[in-house]
Formats: sequence, C-alpha cells, structure tokens
Amino acid sequence: MSKYSIILGNLGNTCDRFLSSGYKDELPKETLLRQAAEIDGVTGVELVGTWDVTSENVEIVGDLLAKFNLKCVSIIPDHFSQKRWGRGCLAAKDPDIRKQALDYTYECIEMARKLKCETLNVWPGQDGYDYSLQSNLVQERRWLMEQIRELAESAPDIRFALEYKPKEPRNFSFMARASDTLLLAKETGLDNVGVCIDTGHAFVAGENVSESIVILQEYGRRLFHMHFNDNYGSWDDDMIVGSVHFPRYVEMLFWLKETNYDGWYSMDQYPYREDGQGALRESIEFLQMIENKLDDAVMEQIRELLREGNAVKSQRWLRKTFFKL
Amino acid sequence: MSKYSIILGNLGNTCDRFLSSGYKDELPKETLLRQAAEIDGVTGVELVGTWDVTSENVEIVGDLLAKFNLKCVSIIPDHFSQKRWGRGCLAAKDPDIRKQALDYTYECIEMARKLKCETLNVWPGQDGYDYSLQSNLVQERRWLMEQIRELAESAPDIRFALEYKPKEPRNFSFMARASDTLLLAKETGLDNVGVCIDTGHAFVAGENVSESIVILQEYGRRLFHMHFNDNYGSWDDDMIVGSVHFPRYVEMLFWLKETNYDGWYSMDQYPYREDGQGALRESIEFLQMIENKLDDAVMEQIRELLREGNAVKSQRWLRKTFFKL
Amino acid sequence: MSKYSIILGNLGNTCDRFLSSGYKDELPKETLLRQAAEIDGVTGVELVGTWDVTSENVEIVGDLLAKFNLKCVSIIPDHFSQKRWGRGCLAAKDPDIRKQALDYTYECIEMARKLKCETLNVWPGQDGYDYSLQSNLVQERRWLMEQIRELAESAPDIRFALEYKPKEPRNFSFMARASDTLLLAKETGLDNVGVCIDTGHAFVAGENVSESIVILQEYGRRLFHMHFNDNYGSWDDDMIVGSVHFPRYVEMLFWLKETNYDGWYSMDQYPYREDGQGALRESIEFLQMIENKLDDAVMEQIRELLREGNAVKSQRWLRKTFFKL
Amino acid sequence: MSKYSIILGNLGNTCDRFLSSGYKDELPKETLLRQAAEIDGVTGVELVGTWDVTSENVEIVGDLLAKFNLKCVSIIPDHFSQKRWGRGCLAAKDPDIRKQALDYTYECIEMARKLKCETLNVWPGQDGYDYSLQSNLVQERRWLMEQIRELAESAPDIRFALEYKPKEPRNFSFMARASDTLLLAKETGLDNVGVCIDTGHAFVAGENVSESIVILQEYGRRLFHMHFNDNYGSWDDDMIVGSVHFPRYVEMLFWLKETNYDGWYSMDQYPYREDGQGALRESIEFLQMIENKLDDAVMEQIRELLREGNAVKSQRWLRKTFFKL
Repeated sequence: MSKYSIILGNLGNTCDRFLSSGYKDELPKETLLRQAAEIDGVTGVELVGTWDVTSENVEIVGDLLAKFNLKCVSIIPDHFSQKRWGRGCLAAKDPDIRKQALDYTYECIEMARKLKCETLNVWPGQDGYDYSLQSNLVQERRWLMEQIRELAESAPDIRFALEYKPKEPRNFSFMARASDTLLLAKETGLDNVGVCIDTGHAFVAGENVSESIVILQEYGRRLFHMHFNDNYGSWDDDMIVGSVHFPRYVEMLFWLKETNYDGWYSMDQYPYREDGQGALRESIEFLQMIENKLDDAVMEQIRELLREGNAVKSQRWLRKTFFKL
Repeated sequence: MSKYSIILGNLGNTCDRFLSSGYKDELPKETLLRQAAEIDGVTGVELVGTWDVTSENVEIVGDLLAKFNLKCVSIIPDHFSQKRWGRGCLAAKDPDIRKQALDYTYECIEMARKLKCETLNVWPGQDGYDYSLQSNLVQERRWLMEQIRELAESAPDIRFALEYKPKEPRNFSFMARASDTLLLAKETGLDNVGVCIDTGHAFVAGENVSESIVILQEYGRRLFHMHFNDNYGSWDDDMIVGSVHFPRYVEMLFWLKETNYDGWYSMDQYPYREDGQGALRESIEFLQMIENKLDDAVMEQIRELLREGNAVKSQRWLRKTFFKL
Repeated sequence: MSKYSIILGNLGNTCDRFLSSGYKDELPKETLLRQAAEIDGVTGVELVGTWDVTSENVEIVGDLLAKFNLKCVSIIPDHFSQKRWGRGCLAAKDPDIRKQALDYTYECIEMARKLKCETLNVWPGQDGYDYSLQSNLVQERRWLMEQIRELAESAPDIRFALEYKPKEPRNFSFMARASDTLLLAKETGLDNVGVCIDTGHAFVAGENVSESIVILQEYGRRLFHMHFNDNYGSWDDDMIVGSVHFPRYVEMLFWLKETNYDGWYSMDQYPYREDGQGALRESIEFLQMIENKLDDAVMEQIRELLREGNAVKSQRWLRKTFFKL
Repeated sequence: MSKYSIILGNLGNTCDRFLSSGYKDELPKETLLRQAAEIDGVTGVELVGTWDVTSENVEIVGDLLAKFNLKCVSIIPDHFSQKRWGRGCLAAKDPDIRKQALDYTYECIEMARKLKCETLNVWPGQDGYDYSLQSNLVQERRWLMEQIRELAESAPDIRFALEYKPKEPRNFSFMARASDTLLLAKETGLDNVGVCIDTGHAFVAGENVSESIVILQEYGRRLFHMHFNDNYGSWDDDMIVGSVHFPRYVEMLFWLKETNYDGWYSMDQYPYREDGQGALRESIEFLQMIENKLDDAVMEQIRELLREGNAVKSQRWLRKTFFKL
C-alpha cells in the first residue's frame, strides 16, 4: 500500500469569493492534526505557509507533528494568499515583489529543514495573467524559471515539486499543464526540480491524468508528488475522490505503480460544506479499495488489456473486477 | 427491470468528418437486427430514417422485426443526413425546405404506424445556426414550434419525443437544453409532445441529468424517452455507459424509478472503432447492474440520503453498496 | 441610448478563496458612490444586501444616493455571503433557514421601497447542490418556487428578476439556465417574476445570449434585467466587456433593441486586480460604441443579414461597420 | 505583410458524421486552385494527402500550381482519412500499420520534393485513444516519437511541423498541446522537427495562443507553422477568423512579429455551409486589418502596455486603436 497524506487545511475552514468568512468555524491547529492522525492510513500532512506554518510557529508545529506521529510531507509556500502577491509573486513585474517572493521561499526552505521535510510543493497561483495584452510572456516566464532555479540550486537537499493548474486565481497560469511545467523544470537543469500533479487541475486542463503521469516519468522521472481530488471537468471543484469519475482512477493507480512512483498519495480537497475528516477519509478509502486490487495478477491483466486496446473488454473487465454484480 | 432497446445504426458503420467512409464495413440490415436480438434484455430497436427505414422498405423492415421478435421503439426521422437539410430542416429559412421537412416527417408517421411504433424521436440536428448575426432567432424558433405542433396535432396517436443537444452539427441548436425544449413542447399545447433526454447531450449542456429528469417529469410528465451513453463532458463522445462516470448513473436510475418513468432505456452510442454489439451489451449490463440494486430497501436508503444531504455519507454508501471492498 | 448602471461592490474590494482578505483595500461607501456617479452615462447603481445596504443603514444610503443623483436600480438580497446560508437559503433543507431566508428577503423588499427601487435582483447562489445523491431535486426545487411565489405575491409593486448561473458557489445551481428559470418564473403564475441575464453566466451555460434574450422576451416578456461582463467561456471570470468577445455583443444589443427591452444595462464585474472605476467605464464605453451604431438604417441592415443567414456577409459587415480599416 | 496561404480542401466539400456525403458538391481541383489564387494576398496552398495530392497525380498538381502561380506551402500527409489508420497510424499497435504509415509518409516526402515544398505538416489525428485502459501510454508514445525521428532524420531537407489537437477524431490525441508536442520534437534531437499551432486547437486546449507561440519560440524556435481559424472554445468549430474573438488575435499577431516568426499565416477552416472562398478571404482580411496596424510605433505601444500590465489601459487602447468610435 502506498503512503497516504492530506493537506492540513482541508480539515479546517474553507471560504470562497462570496462567503469570505468561510462555511465553517476555525479549529485549533492541534484539533486539525489530531483529526489527520485519526484517519486510517494517513501518516503525513502537507502544511501551507501562513495558514499552517510560519517561521514563528515552526517549532510548535514540529512538536505537534511529533505528538501525533505525523510526517511533514511537504510545505506549500504561501505564494497566493497575501495581498502583496496579488499581481504576481515569483514572476511579478515589480522587482521588489520578486525579491520578497524569493526571500519568503527561502524562509519556507528553512522551515522545511526544521521539520525534516524534503519537499517544497510550489504552486505559484498568482503568477499568470487575466487579459490579452497584459503580460510580457517572454520576460515573465523567464523570471519564473530563474527564480525556481535560484531556489533549487541553493537547496539541493530539498525537492521542488511544481504544481500546475490552468487557471484560478489568474485566468491563465504560467504553470498551466503537465508538459509546460516539465519544460520549465528541465530548463532549470537541476534534478531536484519536478512536478506535482493535482488530479483535478489535470482534469480541468483536459489531460488524461494517466498520460500526464507517464509523460512526467518518461522524461527523467520528474513526477515528484500527487494531489488527489475529483471534479466535473470544467473547474477545480476539489471534491471527494470517486464522486464523479471511476475508471480514470484505476488507470492512474495502475500507471503510478507501473512507473514505480514512490511518492505520497496526498489528498487535496475543499470540503466547503462537508465534514472535512469524513471527506478525506472517504477519498483515501476509495483509492485504497482500488490499490488493494492491484496485485501482480491484476497488473498483468491490465497490461494485457493495454496491449489489446479493446475498449469493450476493458470496460467489462472493470465492471467485473470492481463492482458487485 | 426496465425495457431496454438500442438504436439500430449503433451496430453498423460509423464515420466522422475525417474518415467519411467510416471505420467499419457496412453490414446487411438483417445482420444488425440479429445482433440486436442477441443482446440479453434488448426487446426493442429505434430506426433512423434513410439509414434504416424508408417508405420503400418499411414492410421488409417490419417482417425482419417480427422475425427477430423486436419492437420498433421509435422512428428517428432523418432530419440531418440529407444535403437538402444542410442549412436547416423543420426551421429552414427556405419555405420550400420547411414544407419538404413537414412532408418527409408525415411519411415517417406513416412508417411508424405500419410498424406499430408509437413514438417519433425528433432530433432536428440541422435546425440552429453557427455564427453571430446569422439567424432570425424569433422567427426561426417560431417556425420550429409551429411545424412540431402541426405534425403532432395531425397525429394524436403518435408521441413526439423531442431530443435536445447543445451543438453539433450546428454550433448552436434551437433545441439545446431540457428546459428550452420543454418550453417548446408546452407551447404546442399538445399532450403528445414531450422530450427525449440523451445523457451525453445533457452532460455537454452542463446539466445534471437527474435534475433534467425531474424538471421534465414535474412539468407535466413530459419525459418521453431516454438515450444512454457516456462522455468526457465537453463533447458528445457517445461512449459505453459507465466508462467515464459512475455515481451520476445511480442517481439517474433512482430518479427515473422515483418519478415513475415507464418508457424505454435506449442505448445511443457511436462505437466508431469498437465491436458495436459488445459496446451496447456492456452498456446495458452496466445499467442493469445498478437497476438490480434498486429494490425497495435501497430506494428508501437513497431517499434518506437525499433528505440528509450529507455528501460524505452518500459517497460512502455508494462505495459500500456497489463496489467489492 | 439605454440606461446604464453598475453594481456598487464592483468598485470596492474583491476577494477569492485563496486571498480571502481581498486584492484591494476597503473604501468608504461614499467614495464608491462618488466613483459610480463619475462614470459618464451611469445613472443608477445596484446594491447588494449586507455588503452595501441593510435595514440599519438604508436611510443613510438613500441620502447618499440622492447626493450623487443616482437611482437604486435593484437590491440584490444577500442570499450567499452569510454563514447561515452555507447549505442553502431559500431552498434550504432546514425549514428554519428557509423561514429566515424569507424574512430576510421581506426586509430587502422594505429597503427597496424606502429607496424607491422597483426591482429585487434575486440570485440564490447557495441554492443547489454539489454531489450526486445530495439533493431531493423535486422537493427542494418546489420550495424554491414556492418561496419566490410567496414573496412576489406579497409585493406586487416589486419586480423580481431571477438571476441564473450554472454553478458557483454550488457545483449545480437550481436556477442554472435561462429556460429553467423562465419555467420557474412562469410557474409562479405572477407577472412580477422574471429573469435577469448575466452575460457571463450565460456564456458559461453554453448559451448564445441573444437567443436567451429572445426566449425570455417571446415567452411573455420576462427579461427583467441585464448584467454585462465577459469571460473565456468556461468560468464566470467577470471581465471587462469586449475583452474576449466582440460579435456576440453586437448581436445582443441588436436583440435587446429589437425586442424592445427597456430595462437597465448594468455592469457586473469582479475587477480583482484592476481599477474598478476604469474597468466599469471601459465596459460601458464599449457597449455604447456598439449602441451608437445601431440607428434605424443599421438595424435594418442587420435584419436583412438575419434574413439571408450568410455568415461570410455578416462577418464582413461586422468588420466594415465597426473596425477602422 | 506576412505570407498568407490556405488549405486547399477548405474550398471544397466538407462533411460531418451526420451528413457524410457533405454539405456541398465536389469541385474540380483546378477550380479550387483558381479560387485560391483569386483571394488577394494568397500566394501559397497546403495540400492534403489523398484528398488533394497523391504519388499518382503529383505532376499534374505541380503543373496546376505553376499555372496559378501558387507555392505548395506544405503537404499534410493523410494520416486520418483511410480506413487502415482507424485504430492508429504512426503509433498504431499493429506493427504492420506502423510500417505502412512510415512508407506512406516517405511517399509524401517525395511528393513534397517534387513540388519544391519544404514542409510536411504532420497531424497524426488517429494516434491516440478513446477509453481508460485502452492504450499502453509509454509504448505507443515512444513509437510515435521514433517514427517521427526516423522520418525527419532521413529527410533533413524537409521541415516537419507537428500539429497538435487535444481531441477529435480520438477522445485523446498523443499530440494534444503545444508543450507536449514540443517535448516530443525536442526528444528527436533533430532541428527539422517543430510544431504547428492551429489557433482553434489551442483554444480548445485552453491555451492562450500567444503564450503557446512564445513557449515554442523560446525553446529553440520550434514554431514552424500557423493555422488560423476561430471557435467558441470547447470544440474545433473551424470558423472564420474574428467571428468569435478579437483581442486574442491582436496579441497573437504581436507575438508572431515580436518573436520574428517568418513562416506562413495559413487559413484552416471547415466552411461546411458557407462559400469557402468568401470565408477564407474574410479571415485573411481580418488578420491583415490587424497586421496593417502593427507598425513600429504600435509595436512599441504594445510593449509598453505589457510592461505595465494594466488591463483597463490595454482594453481601452484596443478599442481606440481598432474600432471606429
């Protein structure tokens, strides 16, 4: 069975642009960590900068992680929720903001080291643009790459997992798709820069996630991290895994195993109106239900299905293998 | 168990705009009907005008249906595959074309009567427009309604199931969504005009099919017919049922039963490169797998889930009820 | 020239789920109103409940409106930004919440009367659902209609413009599309219930806005209000009018005029990172640029283009009429 | 002014899956070429294999091109309209089909040489898959790359422009997006392999075409070719340029010029029901209208807009520069 983790904030309050105070009440960090630890199979958490961890509270957070026997799987630098990043962060037009973004990310690297965390999950959500004729696409994309390179070069002990997303909060993100982001990662020339797939972001990008996994693994094993959720295809609805799609997850878990992905299976959802712990638990149990089936014999059956390419057989096999008839 | 049928042409050759000769070979009509009859549970077929049935061959087709003990569930007038309908059919700008469309549909009514078929499934695929400033939206929509009304008034023994689809082959169809089409049906003032939901068309329209079912049933039991298939959400891919989505089909079958839908469950797919019979059979077995579960106890469990509205519970219930754990 | 208005909050701070404190600073209400009045052509504003107007401040707001010579075009009851509405408002499962929603809306009616405002723009953003098997679609949709009917029946002096939107903040809204909402409006049996089109919501619904205008006008002149903005088609990006599309707006303004729409042309945007006043002004100037061209001769030219339906001619005409060659 | 060309077949008959005989009548090749030559500014044509050019008729075609003084801008090998390619072509599972695909493409290289054409525009439309668990994504993607490499290595005098498209005729194409295709091109290690952007394909992929241009040019000047058309965003509607969008085309033409693209501006449309010559002419005049404005002063104005990133200013500038006020 793979290693499962969650993003801590998924257990807390979540807001949107209409209900900015959030749908729930704020809970103490200790409660969130206890809830994480209570989910069967969860052994790690991801912490978001500002929201979950800062230079100021990192030791306290470390103690709490130890208390609940949880590993810090990644730190996600807060490149998105601060007013100063509103018009760009690592790739901002303003050189002072770019510098601040760099400094802040260095801080996150230090936090990671203190928490014995090996991965920075970098999602530069504010780096992009909204309108035609608003961005110097050559220059700003270069800045983004150079900043990532500078950070990664300075911290060879840390893996930088770049998380892509086609849009939101910008109408166009610079890191929009698996291959765009892989190109940027490769351009740094550094082995500690790779990519994080968020399944919902990939759905919105029109990608078949399995193919994104394969592309990232084929070009130098650059798949560093996985975020799981589900959605209806046109937006990052951040729903419980399996609540919309089914066969796609079987294919994903097959290819993760087939390409020897050994990273975390992390849940990233926005259970606005749901019990957060329940939503994450259900997602994990859904994935584990699939993983449990993927023994050697079943892996070989799938390989044979792929060789043949007969969609009727594949669908029949999926139904007979996974459903109560 | 419900009544299952298929669209006959799904078993034959299928083409697209790039491979206009089609991906397969043409098969004799008798072979298609034999294949239909061989699928467990199939007791009816839908026949497309021109492709499957014409005034000339209707007796022969009737004999073949009898031979294979198949009911003609609907005739789908060919309002889309003839060059003369290229710029519109029932709602064409050219009054002569509108007249031809009417005459041709009257012919289809006669065919239906000869085959003891009670339903005309009307999909006016060419009625719509492609560009801004191309259609007199008031006038052409009125023509469409008036033509339907004239036809339905003249044939009270026939039910007219209007099939909607947001686009293709026109960029915008006049019958685009469930509610648009319901409005038109109601405007005729006739009880024998209702709506056909094609699940894939509804997905493309962004509808939750269950809600479309409910809307059509709530406003005077206007759901006359159901076409089943699956797709990725942005286009009418016409795939095997369950090959992309799962929970949505459970919800649909619940609501069909809950609102006492007593029409056909008909398969409408385009198995371009698949064995047609296998694709249809697999779709039916997928739906029957769900239907088999929907006994009184399970229906009541679902009602309780809907009362509570707890998404975590619903997802957990779906997994535990339908999947092998 | 038509009557132009704006939604007041568009001039203020705007947030999203990642930057919940907002991209800008809060401004005093008086500043917002002054900015509104400064935009050439703007003679009215729409006020959002809670954000802009409450029972407590309604007199002060009225005085400020008078000071800046602005009409209150509509009140938009706050059915979306309060925690108590998080799981539904007018159609909530909880009868107490439904009652509160009713009471609160009655309050808004009183505010409207105090401000001599004739329209309540009702956008029940929280009424819908997110997951399969989460909503009793029959019951909850009925509640929504009945609540609207009760409100509208009690206030025949007020027009209720129901604003539809396919999704956000719920994955599925009960008022999702023009025709769905028209059906609900008609079901109330009341003449003071109609529909508001938000152009961006309609784009996301896959509608051709011109056709939505026509449908609403054809079925009993139910188009009560218009919100203008632009987007990329898959999400409610709430952008400056004309920043993505062009010919669609020409077609819209033609049909508004052709069907004798005499309501407001109101701007509804989310200029997260832009100068709000500038964004609204530019949108209005864009629309006025089109409107200025629509004199009797040009209206007749368009009618002729619609009669002929030749897309090449229409595109050529658009280019020659609107662009500097 | 740039070099303009068209795809010859755009002038002929076009069909779809419902009207497989096509919306128009077939015209003699000479008529099509005459029509192409008649369009002001057109100096080249692209020829599709099978449809327009074969080993058998290449000399005749060459003579006709000479007669009308048209350059053959590219040959587009027919990797999509033959029944044998139905389940894959260059990347087919069947080794014999892969071999045939290679042999056929070699034939196209010979045709190109005979016509003094420097570019093969390779669109492997049938290489992809439709269902989950249908494709060995690692193996089949490798085959595709290896076949392209083998072809390009053998013909250093020919440029291979790989045209991407997210879907259709397969639900998922292997060459789906700009960056995916760039990665494949780079992996060949050959300088004569690059990418063709079809603007409509890029819209469907959710790309901002300008950014795709920039990415391809930044990573080694791999933008080899441009196909122009417009659509509504969710499907390859292949419409007249400018019939839906406007500012995006200004941004594109800016970046093509700014990155010193010196290839062709080629029209690729499917004027199903329109006069083909008129549709192409209008598209070219629309693009030329923009290009005509992009003199040194305007280019500098745009650079300044990009430096500042003020969307209100950009939209205002667009309106004042391009529209009659």
